[in-house]
Order: sequence, then structure tokens, then C-alpha cells
Amino acid sequence: MLTEMPVADISLNGLSRRVGIAKSNVLRYFESREAVLLELLNTAWRDWLSYLALRIPAAVDPSAPLTARCEQLAQTITQSLAAHPQLCELISASAAVLERNISADVARRFKTTALENTVTLACLIQIRLSELRDPTAERLARTTFLVTGATWIMAHPSASMIAANQSLAVSPVDFSVSLSEILADLLAGAIARSPD
Amino acid sequence: MLTEMPVADISLNGLSRRVGIAKSNVLRYFESREAVLLELLNTAWRDWLSYLALRIPAAVDPSAPLTARCEQLAQTITQSLAAHPQLCELISASAAVLERNISADVARRFKTTALENTVTLACLIQIRLSELRDPTAERLARTTFLVTGATWIMAHPSASMIAANQSLAVSPVDFSVSLSEILADLLAGAIARSPD
Repeated sequence: MLTEMPVADISLNGLSRRVGIAKSNVLRYFESREAVLLELLNTAWRDWLSYLALRIPAAVDPSAPLTARCEQLAQTITQSLAAHPQLCELISASAAVLERNISADVARRFKTTALENTVTLACLIQIRLSELRDPTAERLARTTFLVTGATWIMAHPSASMIAANQSLAVSPVDFSVSLSEILADLLAGAIARSPD
Repeated sequence: MLTEMPVADISLNGLSRRVGIAKSNVLRYFESREAVLLELLNTAWRDWLSYLALRIPAAVDPSAPLTARCEQLAQTITQSLAAHPQLCELISASAAVLERNISADVARRFKTTALENTVTLACLIQIRLSELRDPTAERLARTTFLVTGATWIMAHPSASMIAANQSLAVSPVDFSVSLSEILADLLAGAIARSPD
């Protein structure tokens, strides 16, 4: 469903029809469609972290020079995200849309899991970039979430923007190419700025 | 007006009341509220570039080591953006909201100015970081736009998320602190990854 339409267009009616549960029953467990989607986001995020953890050891050569390791890790993170488009769509809608129509209780539950996921991503980054200390690795994990959502939005412009890009001969933003460059810059820069 | 409410809540009625022009007259020149706000975005962006151009020479020491120059430039860009909250608000809404309800014609006009502004920002970055070649500097200028909008959204969470952060003792995202770190990482990383 998420691959067919933007998060903003998904209604609670549509969600309950799709999973075959009456809307009244969905609302017995979730206070709003935003609460459902944030729960889906955390689940998809955890699934992605497991997927990424399996790929990093083979994809990033521990004996490669620092810059090459940053680029290999950036590509691995990006490719694994591109393989999880629903997660990217939910991340792109999380701060501006999904976190708006929820109670403090749902927000706390979402934030608790989000913090755990951030720590896990920071650990995964450190597997092949042990130069990064804990607070810096966690900062990069938070920033990865931020730039993933923003790059996803930029890579899915409106029909009018697509037409404008074509008429101006501007290359469209490619999610994987752009995100990979941004993450490689962030990783290499954070290490260059770290005290030795 | 933009400092009082989020872009998503600004109506064409409210816009025309504020500038004292009948809505029918606003619509004679602009096809939608999104077209008005994109025009405001480009104007605010140009004003900000002029403001930034005046500040970089004094704020970034050309004889400082590379990492220090990256950090000084990141801080100068961030402080100048923080001094232009309307611009940040419009940037944060541009890709996900404003670019959606416009014609291909308005999109082309917006994109043309946006491209000019990106080239200008790339030149300003190069004033004190001449290590950066043209395509890399332009990439960083585009990424600056992307991370500014995303950081602005993260730094303005909903009331429920603020309550959740407080109950979990999580520090809120500070726009200036976060953006400055992200930009410094991006600049230092792009230079570390540049061919000599």
C-alpha cells in the first residue's frame, strides 16, 4: 500500500480495508492513522537494521583506507535503504506529518523505540569505522535518518517539477546517488573533525 | 505571518488580508497560494545570500587550518540562516508541500531561480574553501538546502513530541547546533574525499 501512494494519502479506512479489520477495531488498538503508521515505521526500521547488519561485514573491507571505508559504508547503507522503499516513505513523512496527530503517550512510545534504533545504527556504523566515538556515531545515526527522509522527498518531485526539470535539462535527483554522496561526506567529515 | 504559523496553515485569504490586496487580485498574478509562497521563498533566499556574502570574509579566517575553516563556514551559514526564520520555514515546506500544487510554468520559473541561487551559494562556499571544485561545491550547496529544511522540521516538533522528549529526558534538537555540525561534517568530508 505504501509503495502505491504517499503516506499523506493513506486513510484509516484504506488501512483497515487492506488488513481486513474493521476501522472500529483498528481504533481500539491505535488512536489514529498516524499512530498506526509510526508503529509500522518502527517495525520497518528494525527490519532494515537486521538486514543492514548482515550486509556490512561483506560490503565494507576493514583493511581499506579510511575514505574508501566511508564510501563503502555509505553505499551499503544507501542500497539497503533503497531496498526498503516503504521505510524511506515513512521516514520522509515522520517529522512533518506523522508526529503531528498523536498523543504524548504514542509519541513517547515511538520515541523510545526510535532511540533504541538510533543506538543500533550507531553500533553498526562503528563495526567498520571504529574511529568514530559513541556520541559522534549516534549523531551520524540521527543525521542518517534526517537526510534519508529529505533525499527521498527530493527524489520524488511533483509532476510539474519533473516537467520543469526536463524543460531546463536538469538531471532529476536520484535517491541512491545523492544519499550515498551525502552519507560518505558526513562519515568522512565527522572522522576528519574528530580529535585523534 | 510566516513567523507566527507554519506554512501549511497559511491560506490565500490570510495572505491577501495581510498584504491588503483582494484575493481575486492576488489570483490575477499568482495561480495559487503555493505560487505566492515559492516566489517569497526565492526572494528570501536571494536576500539571505546577500547577507551571507557580507559576513563570510570576516567570519572565516583564510589562514586557519582546513578543519577550522570548514567549522567557521558551517557556523556562519547556520547563524545567517537562523537570522532568517521565514526562509527556513519556506525551505522546510518547499519540496513536500509547496512544489505540489503548482503548474509546470510556475515550477520552471521557481526552478530557474533556485538553480541561480544554488550557483551563488556554491561560489560563496568557495571564497574560503577554494579546495572545493565547482561540481562538488554545487553539490554541497544543494545539500545545504536539503539539510536546512530537514533540520528546521526536526527542531520544531509537535507538542506531543516535546512532551515525550521531556519525559524521556532527551535533549530537543537545537536548529543551530545540529545544522552547524551537519554542515561542518559535509564540508570537511567533501574535501577529504576530493582528489588532490
